[in-house]
Amino acid sequence: MQLNELETPVLVLDRTRMDRNIARLRERLAPFGVALRPHVKTNKSADVARRLGPPGTPITVSTLKEAEYFLDHGWTDILYAVGIAPSKLPHVERLARRGARLTLILDNAEAAVATSAYALDHGLELPVLVEIDTDGHRSGVKPEDPALLEIAARLSGREGEGAWVAGVLAHAGDSYNCRSTDAIVAMAEQERAGAVRAAQRLREAGHAAPVVSVGSTPTAHFARSLDGITEVRAGVFVFFDLVMNGLGVCRTDDIALSVLCTVIGHQEEKGWLITDAGWMAMSRDRGTARQPVDQGYGLVCDLEGRPLQDLVMIDANQEHGIVRHRTDPAATPMLPVGTLLRILPNHACATAAQHGAYAVVAGDTGVEAHWPRFGGW
Amino acid sequence: MQLNELETPVLVLDRTRMDRNIARLRERLAPFGVALRPHVKTNKSADVARRLGPPGTPITVSTLKEAEYFLDHGWTDILYAVGIAPSKLPHVERLARRGARLTLILDNAEAAVATSAYALDHGLELPVLVEIDTDGHRSGVKPEDPALLEIAARLSGREGEGAWVAGVLAHAGDSYNCRSTDAIVAMAEQERAGAVRAAQRLREAGHAAPVVSVGSTPTAHFARSLDGITEVRAGVFVFFDLVMNGLGVCRTDDIALSVLCTVIGHQEEKGWLITDAGWMAMSRDRGTARQPVDQGYGLVCDLEGRPLQDLVMIDANQEHGIVRHRTDPAATPMLPVGTLLRILPNHACATAAQHGAYAVVAGDTGVEAHWPRFGGW
Repeated sequence: MQLNELETPVLVLDRTRMDRNIARLRERLAPFGVALRPHVKTNKSADVARRLGPPGTPITVSTLKEAEYFLDHGWTDILYAVGIAPSKLPHVERLARRGARLTLILDNAEAAVATSAYALDHGLELPVLVEIDTDGHRSGVKPEDPALLEIAARLSGREGEGAWVAGVLAHAGDSYNCRSTDAIVAMAEQERAGAVRAAQRLREAGHAAPVVSVGSTPTAHFARSLDGITEVRAGVFVFFDLVMNGLGVCRTDDIALSVLCTVIGHQEEKGWLITDAGWMAMSRDRGTARQPVDQGYGLVCDLEGRPLQDLVMIDANQEHGIVRHRTDPAATPMLPVGTLLRILPNHACATAAQHGAYAVVAGDTGVEAHWPRFGGW
Repeated sequence: MQLNELETPVLVLDRTRMDRNIARLRERLAPFGVALRPHVKTNKSADVARRLGPPGTPITVSTLKEAEYFLDHGWTDILYAVGIAPSKLPHVERLARRGARLTLILDNAEAAVATSAYALDHGLELPVLVEIDTDGHRSGVKPEDPALLEIAARLSGREGEGAWVAGVLAHAGDSYNCRSTDAIVAMAEQERAGAVRAAQRLREAGHAAPVVSVGSTPTAHFARSLDGITEVRAGVFVFFDLVMNGLGVCRTDDIALSVLCTVIGHQEEKGWLITDAGWMAMSRDRGTARQPVDQGYGLVCDLEGRPLQDLVMIDANQEHGIVRHRTDPAATPMLPVGTLLRILPNHACATAAQHGAYAVVAGDTGVEAHWPRFGGW
């Protein structure tokens, strides 16, 4: 089957690019001697995850549904990298009873007390990482915050028994807002140093804290040192996207995801092509709006995946996209109704989440497989 | 079962509010003597659609998957309100052979020629509405455009045979950008007058054009005249959302959708509550960003659905929300970890699309049903 036989819109995954992206990060991390614990929230697909490593290799998830799905598909070493809500502990227990070795994270004493009590009451071992905030973008305690030791003190278990301090986790999410590779290098070092410092404080207080987990796709690609780090997490690197391109982390021809769509009409005097891929197919993500080059809802390529010079998706309704030359409406080619286009997304996680499957190609337009993906909680 | 027994995030639908919203639009349209053809792209659920009318009543869809699903559930009078891509005609035919009376729309001669030829070659009757552009926001031909008659001339069938000119369709999507109810009233009249004028031109050229279809949730609620209109389309009115609230079309306590989430942490010095509803649960839609009152990613309510004064979701990661007082971080109440909140969405279509089901309540916190909804194409 060929791409032009599919009913649009369709999420297309170029496996050749994906495999190259995966190999690139593996090769980059190899000299550092750290484990890669890929974040499968981006792909939500056992077929994709198998390209990252066989079931049994460590993964990171953002929901317990992801944990459950990947457990069902043979993965057991799972880090749930969103602060645990105490009400989710019964679900955690069900997964643990089924064989998951689930590591939790938290950043406050209330959650630590609840998790510790639950583990004790239910005879569960629960490794816990304290979430560290190294860039102010979201959750976590600062590396030097007295709260770090107070939280750890509430985790009364030890390795093999109860909820115990397995280490620390940091995520330099603010690296998405960097404006240069030098800034990403600095952000990576800030992430590393903060996580290592927090782990050191825990160890000085008597906790084993064997795990020092860091990561984001930008910092994973630009860290100069990973001294003291035991594992690196990243998710978007598998597919890449326009935000990563805007950060200088990848080229446009590294981007493995695109949305295949069809031209359904024109507004010729405005230089608009109307397509059948709207925000439902691309997501509402406008991550490049804050970057030097705003790619609208996506960069437009031909059926073979080659960018059509400066054609971008400038606006979106639910099932309509508006495509135009970036700056000069008169320069938009009035491609005939029926023309197939492929739109590179701003944000791989968000665009992929709008679809139930990947149409897999390998550098050309032949469809070699359909890989299902899931959503929801 | 109660809302506090559900694992968050969860999409909550208040059926009491929904039923009131549906009754309101029905009552408003009754004196005009027009049909209501609700747009089910917002709800994608037979359970919701049955509240709008029994299977058999007219509906509007935005994808052929919606058409197929609603056909499977007994609806047959279906308007597919996105310009037809010729490559989708075999799918249209399959639905027609299974009993759908599917009306198509288009706005260009290429699609008209292809549709006409397909209908002729396959012995299909296909009623077609020519899409009219009354506000410049998207697709369609202007009411006075010579192209209108050229397109119609390519549709060679007649009622009962082939692809034929069943009328016109206009959608005042630009009404979402209005800044006053007077502006919406004017927009509704512009939509009506443009559609009626286009239909008149078609009739003068010898086409039957019995259907004059208009609609958007704002214009449906504010039109002063619907003279010459045969049917009104609207979708968001069933649930309403913060964009509609910002337009003055509804109050916040008319909004029937919310996302139930859990407080999982704090950044106290910034006045932040961290929740487990990120953009995956809310969507990336920031529709209120362009309105006088920017509601961030949503307006925060307590478990009972009462707005917590000026608490909004100011930012979102994939599975994390950041909630803060709108203007004064120090005024954010540091609600304990585990607190359940309900977030009213900017855009009902976009938020609902992120979920696989509705947890249905009726004005309180008791869950009376779980209604599945679908996504994809």
